[in-house]
Amino acid sequence: MDTFDAVKTRLTVRSFKPDPVPVAVLEKILEAARVAPSSRNLQPWHFIVVRERSMLKEIGSIATSGKFVADAPLAIAIATDNADRPDLDSGRALQQMELVAWAEGLGTCFVGLRDETQNAKIKKLLGIPAEFDLITVLPFGYRTDDIGTSGSKKNRKALSEIAHSEKFGVPYVGQAPG
Amino acid sequence: MDTFDAVKTRLTVRSFKPDPVPVAVLEKILEAARVAPSSRNLQPWHFIVVRERSMLKEIGSIATSGKFVADAPLAIAIATDNADRPDLDSGRALQQMELVAWAEGLGTCFVGLRDETQNAKIKKLLGIPAEFDLITVLPFGYRTDDIGTSGSKKNRKALSEIAHSEKFGVPYVGQAPG
Repeated sequence: MDTFDAVKTRLTVRSFKPDPVPVAVLEKILEAARVAPSSRNLQPWHFIVVRERSMLKEIGSIATSGKFVADAPLAIAIATDNADRPDLDSGRALQQMELVAWAEGLGTCFVGLRDETQNAKIKKLLGIPAEFDLITVLPFGYRTDDIGTSGSKKNRKALSEIAHSEKFGVPYVGQAPG
Repeated sequence: MDTFDAVKTRLTVRSFKPDPVPVAVLEKILEAARVAPSSRNLQPWHFIVVRERSMLKEIGSIATSGKFVADAPLAIAIATDNADRPDLDSGRALQQMELVAWAEGLGTCFVGLRDETQNAKIKKLLGIPAEFDLITVLPFGYRTDDIGTSGSKKNRKALSEIAHSEKFGVPYVGQAPG
């Protein structure tokens, strides 16, 4: 799938077909993570691949904002170790993962684990050292047929609300000045 | 360009051809930002498009880690307003911008503006409200011919160093358990 098409059509997906994710596809998603850019190229990340049903269910039962993880065939936890900018590095890696997954017919939904108790429980479940930052657990699976054929369901601000020319508050215009 | 190919071949680019970035290409990059996912879909971001040479030079003279901005034909500053997770949302948007730009023959380099004095100076220059978070200024331009034909220059950890199966510390294996 073309890069811009993937970006344009990508939607957040919270329900998945039961089909397992083939190893070749999983490894493309992991490769998208591995080659992502990071602050000072520190690559401070770890990716825990979860496919055991009991583990997925347990994660879904802990994470109140990610109950759907329980029904995904795959989840990948992202944790960082002593990162300069844990959220920024993780955001770049996970977006590459999401786009590559999308291009393969899969979907995901970012699960923020900001509740400290839930975050700590999942770290313990996954054996992640307490001093690491657990950023998210991303479920992955083939998306169901009622989603993902168009980007029309995206609810986004207009470009005029978020883009500026040269200075904040000066409306963006296509043509360059001067 | 295929999504996975863009992810695999993308490199950080710090020198650019002098050619201006066509409006149609700039607007694909802005669209990649606009449709990016964000925490609770708050879309807390603003994108300031900078094309005036004097502004680009001034940014390059302030940002010690981004002197090359001075010589780019375009830069886009990302600032967030009261975001839940400024770095995470910005990381997701900027990675979509970077990949779409790469697929169009352009390159960029994340410029962290962690030095508070420099950050404040650039906010002032760009008229960004003091209470916003200025995350980065991304230069964009067509990449020079000696870069970007392969991903071979990427220096990355091996998958075995960063991937785990079910629990941290358990080596990743391709085949699912059970």
